[in-house]
Amino acid sequence: MTLRDDLQAMAEKSWQASREMAVIAGSVKNDALLGMADALLAHKDEILAANARDLEAAEGTDLPYALRKRLELNEEKVAAMARACREVAALPDPVGEVFDMVLRPNGLRVGKMRVPIGVVLTIYESRPNVTCEAAVIALSAGNCIILRGGKEALHSNLAIARVLADAGRSAGLPEGALQILDTTDRDAVGILLGMSEYIDLVVPRGGEGLIRAVVEQATMPVMKHFAGVCHTYVDAAADLTMAETVCYNAKVQYPAVCNAMETMLVHADVAEAFLPAMCRRFVEAGVELRGCERTRALCPGASAATEEDWGTEYNDLILSVKVVGGFEEALDHIARYGTRHSEAIITDDYRTAQRFLACVDAAAVYVNASTRFTDGGQFGLGAEMGISTDKFHARGPCGLRELTTYKWIIYGDGQIRT
Amino acid sequence: MTLRDDLQAMAEKSWQASREMAVIAGSVKNDALLGMADALLAHKDEILAANARDLEAAEGTDLPYALRKRLELNEEKVAAMARACREVAALPDPVGEVFDMVLRPNGLRVGKMRVPIGVVLTIYESRPNVTCEAAVIALSAGNCIILRGGKEALHSNLAIARVLADAGRSAGLPEGALQILDTTDRDAVGILLGMSEYIDLVVPRGGEGLIRAVVEQATMPVMKHFAGVCHTYVDAAADLTMAETVCYNAKVQYPAVCNAMETMLVHADVAEAFLPAMCRRFVEAGVELRGCERTRALCPGASAATEEDWGTEYNDLILSVKVVGGFEEALDHIARYGTRHSEAIITDDYRTAQRFLACVDAAAVYVNASTRFTDGGQFGLGAEMGISTDKFHARGPCGLRELTTYKWIIYGDGQIRT
Repeated sequence: MTLRDDLQAMAEKSWQASREMAVIAGSVKNDALLGMADALLAHKDEILAANARDLEAAEGTDLPYALRKRLELNEEKVAAMARACREVAALPDPVGEVFDMVLRPNGLRVGKMRVPIGVVLTIYESRPNVTCEAAVIALSAGNCIILRGGKEALHSNLAIARVLADAGRSAGLPEGALQILDTTDRDAVGILLGMSEYIDLVVPRGGEGLIRAVVEQATMPVMKHFAGVCHTYVDAAADLTMAETVCYNAKVQYPAVCNAMETMLVHADVAEAFLPAMCRRFVEAGVELRGCERTRALCPGASAATEEDWGTEYNDLILSVKVVGGFEEALDHIARYGTRHSEAIITDDYRTAQRFLACVDAAAVYVNASTRFTDGGQFGLGAEMGISTDKFHARGPCGLRELTTYKWIIYGDGQIRT
Repeated sequence: MTLRDDLQAMAEKSWQASREMAVIAGSVKNDALLGMADALLAHKDEILAANARDLEAAEGTDLPYALRKRLELNEEKVAAMARACREVAALPDPVGEVFDMVLRPNGLRVGKMRVPIGVVLTIYESRPNVTCEAAVIALSAGNCIILRGGKEALHSNLAIARVLADAGRSAGLPEGALQILDTTDRDAVGILLGMSEYIDLVVPRGGEGLIRAVVEQATMPVMKHFAGVCHTYVDAAADLTMAETVCYNAKVQYPAVCNAMETMLVHADVAEAFLPAMCRRFVEAGVELRGCERTRALCPGASAATEEDWGTEYNDLILSVKVVGGFEEALDHIARYGTRHSEAIITDDYRTAQRFLACVDAAAVYVNASTRFTDGGQFGLGAEMGISTDKFHARGPCGLRELTTYKWIIYGDGQIRT
C-alpha cells in the first residue's frame, strides 16, 4: 500500500461514514459526546503519558518556549477537554431543521433542510486540545472528521483521538466518523487536499504559512482565519470616557488574540482632548505606541509608525495610533489595512454609527463596544470551530450551524414540468 | 503596462467600486437595471452588428453547429435580455436585511446584516446572453462583476457589456461596477484567479474542462455546477401511473438540460408491472434505452448498460435503466453515481418518502415530482446565476440572495470584555 492508497482508503471510509452520520439521531451524537467526556477522564494517564513523550522529544529542539507551553497537557487541561465535550452536547442540534418552505402555484411544497456538510479535514499546529475541540464540534454537527495535527504533538493527538474514537464507536457512531493521520509525512496533506470527491471542507488552524499552503493546494472549500488587524475608530462625537475604557480593554485585556485592537484611529477634532491621557494609560500598562506625526506631537512616548505597522497584527502589547481628518479617512484606512475581522467605532452620533455599520466590510462591525467580543461564546453560539475571515458561507465565529449546509426538499403529488 | 498590470488595475477598480456598491440605494440599482433594458433595445443594431462579426469569424472554423446557434443573436434574443433586466429589477433587494438579532446578557445587541459578496468574476463560454444575465443578477445583489466570455463571442460580449456599463453609469452605479476583459489572452484567467485580495468569488459557467481548470487555479471560492446525473427511483409502493408520467417528463420534456433524468431505478417488485409499458413509451419518443440484465429481459429494445453509462450525463434522448433489489440498493446507487444535483423518488409509502428525503445527499431531493423543476424560476427565486452542485454556501438554484453574504453587527453602549 502506498501513502496515497492509505489516504484514499481513509477518505473513502470517512465518506461512507458520513452517509450514516447524516441521518443519525441527535441522542446518539449526544451520548457519544458524553461518553467521550467520561473516556477522556478515565484515560487521562494514558493521554498524559503520550504527552510526556512529545514533551521529551521537544527537549533539545528549537521549539520556542511559548509553543512548548501550548504543547504541554496536564490534568486540568484534560478536564477542560472533557467539559468542552459536555458543553457541546448540551447545545441544540442544528441538523434536520426545515425552513423557507413555500407552497408553489403548482402545488409543489419547496423548502430547505439543514444537513451536515459531510467530511471535514482539520489541519492544525501544536496545541493538542484542538484534537478534541475540533472533533466534538464537527461530530456534533453531524460531520465526519479527519484530523491532521502537528508533528510535535503526534503522540498526544493520537492518544486523544483514539480515546474519542473508541468512545464514539461504543455509543453508536459509525466506524470512521473520527479518524486521525498517524503519519507525519508532509506529502499526506497535499494528497488529501486533492480528494474533493470525498472531503467537503478543510479547516486549517495555525500560522499564515500553513493557511496559505492549504488554500493553494485545496480543491475543496477552505474555512479559514487569516490575520486580525482590528481597528477602533474614536469619532469626533465619541463619549471620550467610554472611548478610553473600550480602547484600553480592546488592546490590553488579552493582546495575544486575533480580536484585540492593533490600530486606534482618532478623529482630529478630539485628538488633543483624548490622546494624551489615553496614551499615558497605555504606557502605564506597558503598551508600546507607534504613531503618526500628529499622534507623536501629543504623545511624546510614541515612536514613528511605518507603513508596515499599519498592516501588522502584533498580537502583543504594541499599538499603532493614527489621527485621521474625518470619518471617510477612517473608512479608507480600515478598507486598506484591515483584514475583515473586527472593526469598531466609538460615537454618540446616530448617523455616523449607522454609516459605519453599513460601510465597513468585516466579519464583525461594532458600535461602542470592544472588538474583544468577537467569539463564539460571546455571540451566543456556545462553541466555535474558529473565526472565519472569509466572506463566503460563514463569517466571524463558526459554531455548529456554520458546519452545516442545506438541501432543497420538494414534496409533490405527481407534478411534471410543462 | 503588462497584462498583469492591466488586470491588477481592473481588479482594484472593481474592488474600489464594490465599496460604493455595498451601500448604494436599492432604487439606484433598479433604475440602473431598467436603464439597461432600455439601452439594450436602443442599441440593438450595434449589438447585432457586433454579433455578425463573431458569426462571420466562426464561418469556416470547426465550431459545431449547436455552438454556432448559441452564439447567434437576433432581435428576439436582445428583447429577451431586456426583459430579463426588468424582471430582476422587480425582485426584492436582499441587501440590508438584519436577522438573528439577539440581546446578550451584557446588553450587547448582536445580529447579522445581509451584504453583497463583493467582486464576482464570471468566466463563461459561447452564449453571449450570459453577459447580460450574469451582470444584472450580480449587480442587483450589490456586487461588482468582471466578465470573461469565450473568444468566439468577443465582439458580441464587448458590445453588450459596453451598453450595460454605460447605462449603469448614467443611472449612478460607480465606475468599474461592470467590467469585461477585452483580451482573449489565455493567461488572463490564471492571473485573475490568483487575485483573492480583490476578487471574492468566481463563477465558471461552461463545460467540465473549464470548471476543473478554474477550480485548480482559483485562490478564492468557486460557485460551480458540475454534472447533473439525476435519478428517479420508482419504489415498490409507487403509484405506477404517476411514476410513468413523471419519469417520462423527467427524461423527454427537455433532455438537453442538467435537471433531466439520466438513470431510472425500479424496485424489483414492480419491474414487471411497470417497465414494459414505460419502455415502450420511451422508445416511441425516440429514447435509446441502456439497461441492466433484468431490465433487458423485460424491455427487449434496451441495449446493455456499461459501468460508464451509470455515471454519464447524456443530455440527450438516452436513458440508463436499472432494476434494484430494494430501497437500500437504490440509495447506494445514487450515492455512488449521482452528482448531488437532483434526485427523485416515486412512492406512496410515508416512511420511505421521509427516509429518501433524509438519506439522499443532493442539492434537490424530490418526492413524487419531476427532477425538471430544479430551477430558480420554478423554486420561486425569480432569477438564477446558475445551479450549484457544491455543498458550501449555497446548493441548487442560486438567485440574488445566494450572491450575498452577511456580517455580524453589534450595538453596544460601552461594553468591555472581562
